[in-house]
Amino acid sequence: MTDSHAPLPPRPSDLSPTLELAFDLIERPSVTPDDLDCQALMIKRLEAIGFEITRLPFGDVENFWAVRGHHGPVMAFAGHTDVVPTGPEANWQYPPFSPCIDADGFLCGRGAADMKGSLAAMLTATERFVTAYPDHEGRIAFLITSDEEGPAVHGTRAVVEYLREHHERLDYCIVGEPSSTDYAGDVIKNGRRGSLGAVMRVRGVQGHVAYPHLARNPIHEAAPALTALTAEHWDDGNEFFPATSFQISNIRGGTGATNVIPGELEVVFNFRYSTALTADDLKRRTHEILAAHGLDVEIDWTLNGEPFLTPEGALVDAAIHGVARALGRKPVLSTSGGTSDGRFIATLGTQVVELGPVNATIHKIDERVMASDLDQLSSAYEHILEYLFVPTTREATA
Amino acid sequence: MTDSHAPLPPRPSDLSPTLELAFDLIERPSVTPDDLDCQALMIKRLEAIGFEITRLPFGDVENFWAVRGHHGPVMAFAGHTDVVPTGPEANWQYPPFSPCIDADGFLCGRGAADMKGSLAAMLTATERFVTAYPDHEGRIAFLITSDEEGPAVHGTRAVVEYLREHHERLDYCIVGEPSSTDYAGDVIKNGRRGSLGAVMRVRGVQGHVAYPHLARNPIHEAAPALTALTAEHWDDGNEFFPATSFQISNIRGGTGATNVIPGELEVVFNFRYSTALTADDLKRRTHEILAAHGLDVEIDWTLNGEPFLTPEGALVDAAIHGVARALGRKPVLSTSGGTSDGRFIATLGTQVVELGPVNATIHKIDERVMASDLDQLSSAYEHILEYLFVPTTREATA
Ligand SMILES: [Zn+2]
Ligand SMILES: [Zn+2]
Repeated sequence: MTDSHAPLPPRPSDLSPTLELAFDLIERPSVTPDDLDCQALMIKRLEAIGFEITRLPFGDVENFWAVRGHHGPVMAFAGHTDVVPTGPEANWQYPPFSPCIDADGFLCGRGAADMKGSLAAMLTATERFVTAYPDHEGRIAFLITSDEEGPAVHGTRAVVEYLREHHERLDYCIVGEPSSTDYAGDVIKNGRRGSLGAVMRVRGVQGHVAYPHLARNPIHEAAPALTALTAEHWDDGNEFFPATSFQISNIRGGTGATNVIPGELEVVFNFRYSTALTADDLKRRTHEILAAHGLDVEIDWTLNGEPFLTPEGALVDAAIHGVARALGRKPVLSTSGGTSDGRFIATLGTQVVELGPVNATIHKIDERVMASDLDQLSSAYEHILEYLFVPTTREATA
Repeated sequence: MTDSHAPLPPRPSDLSPTLELAFDLIERPSVTPDDLDCQALMIKRLEAIGFEITRLPFGDVENFWAVRGHHGPVMAFAGHTDVVPTGPEANWQYPPFSPCIDADGFLCGRGAADMKGSLAAMLTATERFVTAYPDHEGRIAFLITSDEEGPAVHGTRAVVEYLREHHERLDYCIVGEPSSTDYAGDVIKNGRRGSLGAVMRVRGVQGHVAYPHLARNPIHEAAPALTALTAEHWDDGNEFFPATSFQISNIRGGTGATNVIPGELEVVFNFRYSTALTADDLKRRTHEILAAHGLDVEIDWTLNGEPFLTPEGALVDAAIHGVARALGRKPVLSTSGGTSDGRFIATLGTQVVELGPVNATIHKIDERVMASDLDQLSSAYEHILEYLFVPTTREATA
């Protein structure tokens, strides 16, 4: 840990348009839900190339929806301008909101990977594409929020409800989340597991440790049931999903006194589940296991997100094509990892994939991404637009 | 719950000396460690009948040791003048420090059962005995503390260390704890189980619930081990002790966040154990079970008290005799229940029994005890002194 940062490398004079825009976005310390005019910057440039903008603020969250074109299928770039907090800035090698390119060619700063770099790449890709194809087929859209990292209630979820109510068409969506693991474009996420949360209260009867026959210890009664839940084989997953996983995140029982048997135990757990089963299946089977152990329980369930999957079709084809052309790489399709705003967008029946830079440093100190990766990512996005909206490109590939 | 108490019955004019003294003691709100001159009251009356007093204050705790006689075996009455807090006084039928005898003949008030009633009975029994037998055999003693209900560090434990250092003889001890269950004298405790406490930390590796393969969930790893510990048959107990019992009093793991696998789990547990095994046996077997489950643990052990047992001999005989004579009852010998100061006294090699009134209301609101039970208890204590120190009594019984 250091109290003084390394000397900041000067801003290069020959930055690409993508990196110029990434610098401009990272300079704005837009910690959730603050947007700090990141969206205004994007909107100005989108308006300049013919987009119609609908600002959709909800609560303290800034969102916008932008469309170019009037007919045909809609392909939206989706993303967020908010970033997670930096923690103590002194722990960073360079100040987190002073973007720079370090000696190894990395763009450094909070949001470089998650996901201001992607936003810049989407926007410059679109600028190049509409310059080359001003009368492109279909419609290009942007769905941008300033609350993906926070409660995520007034962000994409609310915009999606707006689109649903207004019968807006949304065929394809590329979410700019950092999907890549080792190299840009090595992984495309074509789905996400569902997330089902639970707060379980196990009831016993409080008493004194010296008189256990007068009490019922909920910790003792729960231990075999928790053993069974952790050992349960929920499913095998399927072609696209790993097996469903169960994790206990929190457990708490006891009065603090060492001679009192508690009357209640609280257990918080979470399922990350595949499309091989449903949230209702998991609830039913959980209750069956608990009942088999004779537990007296009460469970509050929270469905954080249903699983979604975009198994095949035009968008997956386009994304693979774009990565191959721009990065010379054949991406792996994956559904692993946490949830993303894709879970909300997919409820519109939209084909959704996530394609963005390497996620190794997201939410950490010294967040960074290879600067050249962002230029290549922008190129990949451009190739995707071509594949979807320029028939000769698609035919040449087929 | 009521904010106004029932009208207080007037203090009867014909109270026995035992109940008069019990009233005087209960009127003093001597919540641990305050003594509020309860001991001064007892000392004054003991001095009047020839006791030599040694005041033994330690820290904020008042204690005294009193002896009458100069030769032969020593029989001590042991007890405490402190009481547990009342909780909201408005919840009591009568004010807790305004002793009264209710319509059913119960002496009501905090300390009536635990154990100012016993103190009064011991003192009046001794007064009658020394009046009848001024030149009794042996020595009668009192070991009184004002911290039995609290940390119990500067109370009986410290007095016992004083006695050990001064090579004071202590052959027999009657602790006035409320040993009785349904009727006064139905149970004499001739021992207590040991109490071994533990704070266990189970180490895992913190992570995100979406990436369980990168984490090690200590709750998941502990569940089968806790199941095994709760199912373990530690011993069969023996003639005098129930089987050793294991109870988890507290468990805590988790960051509070629902998507984080915690890095550590804390489990607090306690053994109440018989003389069929030792604290070291329990520690070794616990570690063996944990090791068999591959747990990475650290345990802080606290030996709250070793078990003690007074299986047979003069004191048990005397106690059975006293109860039979005064209460017309054959008491059961028992070692069940919590710990008491008997655990400290027994380390002197002393024969220790606990004999006191019914414990149904101790530490609760509306603590009470049958008033006539205290008179009979005083008579039982007197018969015990006769049995031990008046040869003709013992011979007549044999
Ligand atoms: Zn993100
Ligand atoms: Zn007591």
